Amino acid sequence: MEKDEEPQRRSIGARRNPETEKAILQAAHEVLQEAGYAGFSIEAVARRARAGKPTIYRWWPSKGVLLLAVYHLHKRAFTHHDTGDLEKDLLLFLSALFNYWHRTPYADFFRSILAEAQADEATSDAVADYARERCAQIAEVFERARRRGDLVPDAEPLVAAELVLSFAWTRLIQNRLEISDEELRSVVRSLVRGVLKSGAG
Amino acid sequence: MEKDEEPQRRSIGARRNPETEKAILQAAHEVLQEAGYAGFSIEAVARRARAGKPTIYRWWPSKGVLLLAVYHLHKRAFTHHDTGDLEKDLLLFLSALFNYWHRTPYADFFRSILAEAQADEATSDAVADYARERCAQIAEVFERARRRGDLVPDAEPLVAAELVLSFAWTRLIQNRLEISDEELRSVVRSLVRGVLKSGAG
Repeated sequence: MEKDEEPQRRSIGARRNPETEKAILQAAHEVLQEAGYAGFSIEAVARRARAGKPTIYRWWPSKGVLLLAVYHLHKRAFTHHDTGDLEKDLLLFLSALFNYWHRTPYADFFRSILAEAQADEATSDAVADYARERCAQIAEVFERARRRGDLVPDAEPLVAAELVLSFAWTRLIQNRLEISDEELRSVVRSLVRGVLKSGAG
Repeated sequence: MEKDEEPQRRSIGARRNPETEKAILQAAHEVLQEAGYAGFSIEAVARRARAGKPTIYRWWPSKGVLLLAVYHLHKRAFTHHDTGDLEKDLLLFLSALFNYWHRTPYADFFRSILAEAQADEATSDAVADYARERCAQIAEVFERARRRGDLVPDAEPLVAAELVLSFAWTRLIQNRLEISDEELRSVVRSLVRGVLKSGAG
């Protein structure tokens, strides 16, 4: 993310300083909690963190990008279960994610970031990077199944993982977070078992 | 959508008049084309359609809901191909949809509506209804495969259709609309064939 600048410019903040970075993310989180999404501004974050606006903008080129960093830092990290059964692992993950979104302000927070991404290219790029990173983590669940010998030879864990993430995000943007276990089970079954009879089509 | 009101109130517009509805949607489309999303307002639509703002709000409770109606009316209607092969049908559909979004302003238009849906409940409800309607149409492609005897007995066309739509919408919100045929083929293969070996898990 950071550019290499000539040494004499380091002092003005071109190189990320972990302490300053932490202070800015902390300030951003506090501003968000106090003023809400509507009252959130880079200006308020700069004031609270005693950092320069240019420093913030150099590291997080827009409000949406900074908010995504805060979301990523504070959102619960989901451990991907390893029950030895792909369907169970995915069901546990999706069920925990929907429950978490449904019960905390993090759903609305992430929805605001997704809204921002529709008008701001830097945010949309950051969201795309974030999606790729999340997909890589979900793909690990499929890779484990592959190592157990459970997958068909042409299975593509990253593609399958993207379908899992897409289902969750698309429910989120519709604000349809109440999902029964039965419905989730159908989704996961369809994802991992497909719908075609072998040999059909 | 419309409520039944007592007869004497019909004249003030509680009952939808198809002519007025058409004029308002047409005016909304024109305002959008001339002023863009940023300059779009119910006020400007009312002026151009010579309709009352209360009439517009009665039928479309918010700007986002009205914009979704305009999108739905003007977006190309995708015919779902019937090649006799589920994978081919889905590939043709997704490929046409991504090409269309990629080459027209309708991608940005729909992205703006999705952004609006993250802050406005009426828009988010309308988007959820729209998603259900689109899923029902995509599910028809799966139902045809079922009638041909190509699906496993526990296949659920609506669930599978939602996974197709979710993939497309999630790429759209990330602004990742350039997708190779090879990538789309992997997605469709994963969707219809699943990833698990039969008997695994």
